[in-house]
Amino acid sequence: MVLKETVSEVGERALIRMASSIYKDHNPSVDLTDDCAFTPIADEYILSSSDMISEKTHVPHGMTPWQIGWFITAVNLSDIASKGGNPIGILLSIGMPRTYLISSFLELIKGASSCATQYNTSIIGGDTKENDHLVISGTALGRVHKDFFMSRKGVQSDDVIAVTGTLGKAAAGFHSLKNQKKSGEINALCEPTPRVKEGQKLAETGLVHSCMDLSDGLSSSLYQLAELNHVGFEIQKEKLPISKELHDISLCDPTVDELYLSLHYGGDYELLFTASKKNISLFQKKLDEINVPLTVIGKVISGKETVFIYDSNENIEVLQNLGYEHFTNK
Amino acid sequence: MVLKETVSEVGERALIRMASSIYKDHNPSVDLTDDCAFTPIADEYILSSSDMISEKTHVPHGMTPWQIGWFITAVNLSDIASKGGNPIGILLSIGMPRTYLISSFLELIKGASSCATQYNTSIIGGDTKENDHLVISGTALGRVHKDFFMSRKGVQSDDVIAVTGTLGKAAAGFHSLKNQKKSGEINALCEPTPRVKEGQKLAETGLVHSCMDLSDGLSSSLYQLAELNHVGFEIQKEKLPISKELHDISLCDPTVDELYLSLHYGGDYELLFTASKKNISLFQKKLDEINVPLTVIGKVISGKETVFIYDSNENIEVLQNLGYEHFTNK
Repeated sequence: MVLKETVSEVGERALIRMASSIYKDHNPSVDLTDDCAFTPIADEYILSSSDMISEKTHVPHGMTPWQIGWFITAVNLSDIASKGGNPIGILLSIGMPRTYLISSFLELIKGASSCATQYNTSIIGGDTKENDHLVISGTALGRVHKDFFMSRKGVQSDDVIAVTGTLGKAAAGFHSLKNQKKSGEINALCEPTPRVKEGQKLAETGLVHSCMDLSDGLSSSLYQLAELNHVGFEIQKEKLPISKELHDISLCDPTVDELYLSLHYGGDYELLFTASKKNISLFQKKLDEINVPLTVIGKVISGKETVFIYDSNENIEVLQNLGYEHFTNK
Repeated sequence: MVLKETVSEVGERALIRMASSIYKDHNPSVDLTDDCAFTPIADEYILSSSDMISEKTHVPHGMTPWQIGWFITAVNLSDIASKGGNPIGILLSIGMPRTYLISSFLELIKGASSCATQYNTSIIGGDTKENDHLVISGTALGRVHKDFFMSRKGVQSDDVIAVTGTLGKAAAGFHSLKNQKKSGEINALCEPTPRVKEGQKLAETGLVHSCMDLSDGLSSSLYQLAELNHVGFEIQKEKLPISKELHDISLCDPTVDELYLSLHYGGDYELLFTASKKNISLFQKKLDEINVPLTVIGKVISGKETVFIYDSNENIEVLQNLGYEHFTNK
C-alpha cells in the first residue's frame, strides 16, 4: 500500500484501523473493535473509553462552559452505557489557553461534575495543561459482569434491530442554536443524555446480541455494525422514531429535511442494538419502567454488508453512509 | 475569595485545587490528592491516571513522532508505577491537524505501542480528532492489591526519604538536544523509563509509607509530599545521586549548574518514597536484583512544611520550590 501523505486524505476511521493494526501487532489479543476497551478482572470487565473534543471542531458556537463540561462527560458515559456498564469514574484532561477565564473553567468543572453525579459516578482525576484553545479529553471507566457485557459483535442472522428514544433531537438542537432560538431543544444537543440505566436494563436480560451508541449518526452506526458482523440491514422508513422537536421544526422550515437528519446527523447518544424478535416485548417492558421508548426499525439480512431502506410502498434503496467522520470533508 | 480573571494568574496547582473542591462537593468520598485515582474492586484497586501533552508546550524541538508516542505512554505509566501498580492498558486520544503526515501518525503509534509492550501492557483504546496542532491525552490503567497500594499520604515522623535511579538525566538530555548533539542522553529526556518494576518491588514489601514520581522535579515533589503530610524534609546535598550524564556536561560547560538542575528540573520519572530507615537495606536488595540504584537523600522533620538542604559543612538553607508549573511564568 502506498501511504497517502496527510491524515485528511484517509479520514478518521482509516487512521483508527491503521493504529489498531499496529496495536495488534504488539499484542494480538487486544480487541479494538468495540466502543470501549474491556479488561477482565475476576468475573467482570473493567470498561474504559476515551473521547476528545476541541473547541474548534466540536463545540457549537453558543454552548456554555457548563454545557461543555456536561457534554464531554456525557459522551464518555455513553460508551459505558452501550456496553451495559455501571460507571465507576471519569478522568478529564483539559487543555486551555492562559487567557481562559477562571470563572469559565469552574463552570466547566461544575457541568462535568453535575453530569457525573446525575449518573451516580464522579470525576476521579485528570490533568490541566496549556493549549492554544480549549481541548478536553475524557476517559470514562465502568464495570460490567462478563455475562452481561454487550459487544458490538454478535449479530445473529434472524435478529431485529432496535433503537432507544428518538432520532434527530441533536439536529433539532443545532438548528435552534444556529437560529439563536432559546429553546429546550438546545439541551438535547449540548446536554445529551447517555443511556446508562437503559443500557444496564437491556444488558441484565442477557438477551442482547450486539449494541453500540448512535454518536456518529444512524447510517454510520448501521454500517459499522454491518461491516463488523458481516451482515446487512433492512430499515423501514416509517418506523424511524423521528423526534417531535425535529418534526415540528421541519413543519415550519422547508429547508429542514427530517428524514435526512434522522438518518445521518450524529449526537443523539441513543442505543442501537440487535436481538431476537421474540425478546423485544421484554426489553419494552424493562424500558417502560423508566419511560424510555424502544422502536424496532428493521432487521438483519444476509449477503453483503449493505443497509437498505424501504417504505410502505415497497420502494427500496441503498441507505447512504453519511455519518460525520473527522479529517474528511463530509 | 475574589476570583482572579484568567487561569494564568493562579497556576496549574491552584486550578486543580479549585476543581478538586468542586468534585468533592459532588462526592465527598473522592480522594484527588494522589497521582492516580484508585477505585476499589474486590481486594484490589483499579488505578487510573491521565496526562496530556501538547506540541506547543511539552515537546522539545527535535523529538521524533516515535519518541512523542513513547513519551506520552511512559509518563502515564509512571503514575501507575508510583502506586506499585501492574499496568493493564493505555488509552490514547490524539488531536492533530489535517495536514499531519500519516507516516508521522504511524510512527507515533509505533512509539506508544513499543513503550506499552516494554512494560507488559498494551494500547487498548483511544480516539483521534482534529486539532490545530498535535495534542495527546493518555490514560493509563493499572491494578494493585489494596495492601500494596503506595499512597502519597502516610509519611511517618521518623521516616527517611529515598529516590530510585539518578537525578538530572532529563536535564542532560535537554542540554544535548538544544545543542544538537546526537547522544544517548537525549533518550533519557525523550524516552523516559517509568519505574514500573521498581514500584512493584517496593510495593510488595508492604513497607513503603508514601510514594510519588518525580515528574515535576525533586524540589516540587518534596514540597507536594510535605504539604500533603504536614511534615518537613531535610535533604543532604552530597547525597543527591546526580546523573553521570549531567555531571559530565557540567564539567565542560560552566553555564550548566548540576545541583540546580538535579533539584529543580523535571522529567526524570524516578520514584521518591519514604519508609523506616531499618527497611532500606531490604529495598536496596530488591532493587539490586534489577540493577537499579537507590539512595537515601534525607529524612522527615517535624514542624512546618518546609524543605531544608544542608551540606557536610553543616550549612543549611531552605530549598526553593522551583519545579515546573503550567500557566505560570516559572
